[in-house]
Amino acid sequence: MKKYNVIVIGGSAAGITAALTAKRYYPDKSILLIRKEEKVLIPCGIPYIFGTVKKVEKNLIPDEILSNNGVNLMVEEVSSIDRKQKVISTLENGPISYDKLVLATGSEPIELPIPGLDKKNVFFVKKDTQYLNNILQQLKEVKDVVVLGGGFIGVEFADEFKKNGLNVTIVEMLPHCLMLAFEEEVCKIAEDKLTSRGIKIITNTKVEEILGEDAVTEVKLSNGQKLKADIVLVGVGVRPNVKLAEEAGLEVNRNGIVVYSSMQTSDEHIFACGDCAIKCSFFTGKPSGLRLASIASIEARIAGANLFKLHRHNVGAIGVFTTAIGELVMANAGLTERAAREEGFEVCCGQAEAPDRHPGSMPGMSHMKVKLVFNKNTEEIIGGHAIGGSSVGEFINVISACIQNKMKANDIAVFQIGTHPAVTASPISYQMVNAAEIANMAIKNR
Amino acid sequence: MKKYNVIVIGGSAAGITAALTAKRYYPDKSILLIRKEEKVLIPCGIPYIFGTVKKVEKNLIPDEILSNNGVNLMVEEVSSIDRKQKVISTLENGPISYDKLVLATGSEPIELPIPGLDKKNVFFVKKDTQYLNNILQQLKEVKDVVVLGGGFIGVEFADEFKKNGLNVTIVEMLPHCLMLAFEEEVCKIAEDKLTSRGIKIITNTKVEEILGEDAVTEVKLSNGQKLKADIVLVGVGVRPNVKLAEEAGLEVNRNGIVVYSSMQTSDEHIFACGDCAIKCSFFTGKPSGLRLASIASIEARIAGANLFKLHRHNVGAIGVFTTAIGELVMANAGLTERAAREEGFEVCCGQAEAPDRHPGSMPGMSHMKVKLVFNKNTEEIIGGHAIGGSSVGEFINVISACIQNKMKANDIAVFQIGTHPAVTASPISYQMVNAAEIANMAIKNR
Repeated sequence: MKKYNVIVIGGSAAGITAALTAKRYYPDKSILLIRKEEKVLIPCGIPYIFGTVKKVEKNLIPDEILSNNGVNLMVEEVSSIDRKQKVISTLENGPISYDKLVLATGSEPIELPIPGLDKKNVFFVKKDTQYLNNILQQLKEVKDVVVLGGGFIGVEFADEFKKNGLNVTIVEMLPHCLMLAFEEEVCKIAEDKLTSRGIKIITNTKVEEILGEDAVTEVKLSNGQKLKADIVLVGVGVRPNVKLAEEAGLEVNRNGIVVYSSMQTSDEHIFACGDCAIKCSFFTGKPSGLRLASIASIEARIAGANLFKLHRHNVGAIGVFTTAIGELVMANAGLTERAAREEGFEVCCGQAEAPDRHPGSMPGMSHMKVKLVFNKNTEEIIGGHAIGGSSVGEFINVISACIQNKMKANDIAVFQIGTHPAVTASPISYQMVNAAEIANMAIKNR
Repeated sequence: MKKYNVIVIGGSAAGITAALTAKRYYPDKSILLIRKEEKVLIPCGIPYIFGTVKKVEKNLIPDEILSNNGVNLMVEEVSSIDRKQKVISTLENGPISYDKLVLATGSEPIELPIPGLDKKNVFFVKKDTQYLNNILQQLKEVKDVVVLGGGFIGVEFADEFKKNGLNVTIVEMLPHCLMLAFEEEVCKIAEDKLTSRGIKIITNTKVEEILGEDAVTEVKLSNGQKLKADIVLVGVGVRPNVKLAEEAGLEVNRNGIVVYSSMQTSDEHIFACGDCAIKCSFFTGKPSGLRLASIASIEARIAGANLFKLHRHNVGAIGVFTTAIGELVMANAGLTERAAREEGFEVCCGQAEAPDRHPGSMPGMSHMKVKLVFNKNTEEIIGGHAIGGSSVGEFINVISACIQNKMKANDIAVFQIGTHPAVTASPISYQMVNAAEIANMAIKNR
């Protein structure tokens, strides 16, 4: 029987990072990564296949990242786990024994109770190269596209589809697109941007049925309206892949495989990380529905390090989101003001806006708006967002650093920034510092 | 006699920020900012006048930032301070009394013992619009430019001058340009970039004399070489403006006006901040020669808040530098490995490199290299640098956040990042996290 010290099941962000971290911490252990897929897609890059990079093959994670770092790879399906014997069964390679097992089995699109989703040219966001190549082929011959769901995935797909000159409509059941991630103000900016790029947005509306004989021809909405549709893209969220864990008798709930802060499951020799594992909030400890590759990779760094000796502790997910529509970049870290209030926090906020160059006449200038959200009682930052140009991409990680370190408004107001005319706001107008100062005043005067 | 609760002397980054902060914290107090200059230049933007923005007038800080926030402005020269009476004397407006005084008198170019620096067309980096306009005029009629000093200012001026199609040579006495701010590796990358843009660099060489009748014609170097020069730009550092403070009997040393962590001088009613004030290192507490607008603005936020009641404490300067040569952006926060070793730290470093987009075929991709420096004994981060595209501008502030919060390698390795295909590295290859992980291994195996 084949034997490895560590087996990782799943080959995407969580699986790869867990395997690489395990090898770093335990270089003498043999490590096998098993995945079903012949090739692995960069998960967040999937929308960009359809307008920007134009080829599925350009959005792959190369296997060299494993082989160059001493991780063995097997493309194979795992059918079951025998926890007593510490052996997994595979379809073609028979049983393989392990000392430690990592489940990084990811997620799959949720199933909606909408009739007609099985029709031809109704697509889901599957991490499957052939399936995505098929969408790419179909796009060449169509005119009208309907995207179900105005979250990140939906918005990004819509914007990419539009680059092919198609008629694109987003249907979202909430009052705004991106509403689970952003403040209403940011959602509106995003919607204006999408509209200005020719994308139609229908909010507060559900889809009732997908119409058509063999293939989709129309989408019927809850308001009675019918939208012409040659293609439907369903991008409404994911659910954790827990089948293997559940069948092995591991504790599982509706949020995923139950893990502790060590990333151990109810079996101490089995760890889980990424989309398949439950998450809790950094702020409240409550279960969290966040599913991001960035969170998956961090959990994997905890799981990989903890396999044979506990080194790390999961403090809960902050949730740092970024999305881009053309040149406009929007990002949020932690709680929005709305989410914070809903959770029962008393909050003080500060906002500031300035050009992200100084003087503003320097090339490449965008206006960057920043909002910070503080817990009024502890004075600690619990959230923040930024809207602007590409510098928002790294700037949101500055806010994330402040959140992780539970910095207070008074400390962020004297944050030791680096600035430069060609790449940031001026030190006088640096948005985060001024937003913190404004919030600080509100806290002092409470 | 005129009377203000607060008088701020100096109108650049420190003075403006101190006045605005004072007004925020003490809205009922009357605040006067006095400065000599009719107009105020954005200090770090000065080099960019000469190639990128092309007009002095495009690099000004508008006075509305003061008037819109209730700060009074007087353009005037302060001739003395009577500390007993708490009154300043001015040339045209007579005596003015204060409760609290802030000195933000800045710095001026250091004087070099080089004969001929008084010749025509030898220029210094003065924060004076007319003077800079004169350089701009002269540039139109010349061919050969020599820049004395290969620090930030020298390198940025050289690159901007080159955009006018001139022959530009940098003369630096140290072995490399930018050596006081960056690791040797970064300096070499910068030098290669400058050379590829047609700028000549002469290092390990001093200037002996500026030659010419009335105006400069040649620069004589310590190696005997003579360089043709129609213009010489001297960019070799600054010294604090302490005259007013010294004459008022405040404690002053060769690093500037002596201030405590409250930013109070030896007179508790007088504060100083910015280039005129002494600084100490965040890492060692020792005197620091750092002079940056970003540091000035943070000190001003401390001074302004502390005027009537102590709210804040200066923890010492980290020093976060950024510079750009064309698309190449380089930045350093805290100690370089070399500086850390020289200070007596035992260090562990980690480095990582990755595209700043994912997949790498996304538009606008640059490779970003990151190095982190940790104190081997405390495991805390004490420095880091990044080299890449424009995202380095905000990314260095992520490192600065880690330093300010004394994060350990093990914590940065599970930093909760936000990532997005269009604006950052992938979560698997995110440079800072991987660099921390590598350093963490080195610390564990020490």
